[in-house]
Amino acid sequence: MTTPGRLIGVGTGPGDPELLTLKAVRAIERADVIAYFAKQGRGGNGKAIVEPLLKPWVTLLPLYYPVTTEIDKNDERYQSLITEFYDRSARDIAGHLDAGRTVAVLSEGDPLFYGSYMHLHVRLSTHYPTEVIPGISAMSGCWSLAGMPIVQGDDVLSVLPGTMAESELTRRLVDTQAAVIMKVGRNLPKIRRALSAAGRLADAVYVERGTMANAAMEKLADRSDGDAPYFSLVLVPGWEGSR
Amino acid sequence: MTTPGRLIGVGTGPGDPELLTLKAVRAIERADVIAYFAKQGRGGNGKAIVEPLLKPWVTLLPLYYPVTTEIDKNDERYQSLITEFYDRSARDIAGHLDAGRTVAVLSEGDPLFYGSYMHLHVRLSTHYPTEVIPGISAMSGCWSLAGMPIVQGDDVLSVLPGTMAESELTRRLVDTQAAVIMKVGRNLPKIRRALSAAGRLADAVYVERGTMANAAMEKLADRSDGDAPYFSLVLVPGWEGSR
Ligand SMILES: C[S@@+](CC[C@H](N)C(=O)[O-])C[C@H]1O[C@@H](n2cnc3c(N)ncnc32)[C@H](O)[C@@H]1O
Ligand SMILES: C[S@@+](CC[C@H](N)C(=O)[O-])C[C@H]1O[C@@H](n2cnc3c(N)ncnc32)[C@H](O)[C@@H]1O
Repeated sequence: MTTPGRLIGVGTGPGDPELLTLKAVRAIERADVIAYFAKQGRGGNGKAIVEPLLKPWVTLLPLYYPVTTEIDKNDERYQSLITEFYDRSARDIAGHLDAGRTVAVLSEGDPLFYGSYMHLHVRLSTHYPTEVIPGISAMSGCWSLAGMPIVQGDDVLSVLPGTMAESELTRRLVDTQAAVIMKVGRNLPKIRRALSAAGRLADAVYVERGTMANAAMEKLADRSDGDAPYFSLVLVPGWEGSR
Repeated sequence: MTTPGRLIGVGTGPGDPELLTLKAVRAIERADVIAYFAKQGRGGNGKAIVEPLLKPWVTLLPLYYPVTTEIDKNDERYQSLITEFYDRSARDIAGHLDAGRTVAVLSEGDPLFYGSYMHLHVRLSTHYPTEVIPGISAMSGCWSLAGMPIVQGDDVLSVLPGTMAESELTRRLVDTQAAVIMKVGRNLPKIRRALSAAGRLADAVYVERGTMANAAMEKLADRSDGDAPYFSLVLVPGWEGSR
């Protein structure tokens, strides 16, 4: 019997290829198979970051998200399409692992922090030797780009998905020193209202495509409410000493 | 007049030298001066991580914390000793910057996330060209080592310093999906009581010296209450799907 291959969840950081770790570079260069999530007809962002590292002989395994634009995310059909997709992706990867191949799964930012890789990890890590290589998270990339000290001393940091209800977001913003609001996109108007109600709008900084070539940032108070891109988040600094 | 040099806050990650980013490696190799915080008579942990990268001609600038073991942290004398220390450190670095030298300040984990570098950043970044290179945070290193999916979907992550009052810690642990408790050390018995009161002790994982050669981890429920080392934290996973 072939010794099974190794599964490696590889954090590729927030966008700047220079923010890959030495460990991630080595894992990518040595893997037999590089798996990555992508939208149908798109290259996948994780793959773009590591493109220059890919050996000509490596096997690429794109995992295409099912097309779900027409279906509500709370719909049962959405849930079952997505679950099937992760099951099928895990089976495809298992096939390579069973054949003794090392499979590196690219994961934007940090793999175990709101990453799609987690759905493969829970399906495979109990059956195959598995390693997770941390990556620079989007929030670290963004507060570093902004030069914004985020927390110091006894500060609490709350990481809040922008998808949550407005009242809940407001309550949590009142009850923390620092905050990062992820998954901004079309939630931006709601996020702005919550920050304003919590008295934190003046401190908030909006960052899009942080560390990518076309990164941009501005005070959220100065930004229009037009839809934000997928790669955007909001930072609210805690540390009093920095203001 | 000489063009002033560049200040670079360099995240060195949680301990494993392979977790340095490519950008951090380049900044360290190219800097004229490498500054780092250290205890009197000790090498400094940030420096140990980058030791193999140091060029023989680089200027080392150790910043020795004042000896404060006899003084309570809330004592005014402590506060003024520490403030003087940061002021003096910033002046020493400014001297090099004024002479046109690039100064890289090593910072464990991520520089702007509870890091000492922040005290230099607020004193110098308005006067000198400054760049911050994010690092893998201790928490990312630890949950990756533990293979623990920390947050997914609409989960909230609360980063809580173990220094806070027990009742406050308990309240916040009840009110979050996932938590990271930093600054464990002698706060361990209190942290255990708070987790237990919040009904989260069974999920909690204790990690010490995560990603370093002598890393260790275990379920917090199984660990004795003896003092934990400085480099230790507690993880409480959010994602239901992973259990
Ligand atoms: C599914 S989560 C993935 C998070 C990622 N695993 C990490 O470690 O940061 C996607 C969210 O991350 C944020 N994000 C990812 N990359 C970003 C970037 N370069 N700039 C700003 N926000 C980013 C956005 O809020 C986006 O909605
Ligand atoms: C002053 S904070 C610095 C945090 C750092 N800047 C970061 O990005 O994680 C020090 C705390 O970080 C945690 N820590 C740092 N390195 C660690 C490691 N390798 N393993 C476990 N905890 C660590 C401990 O809780 C410690 O009390």
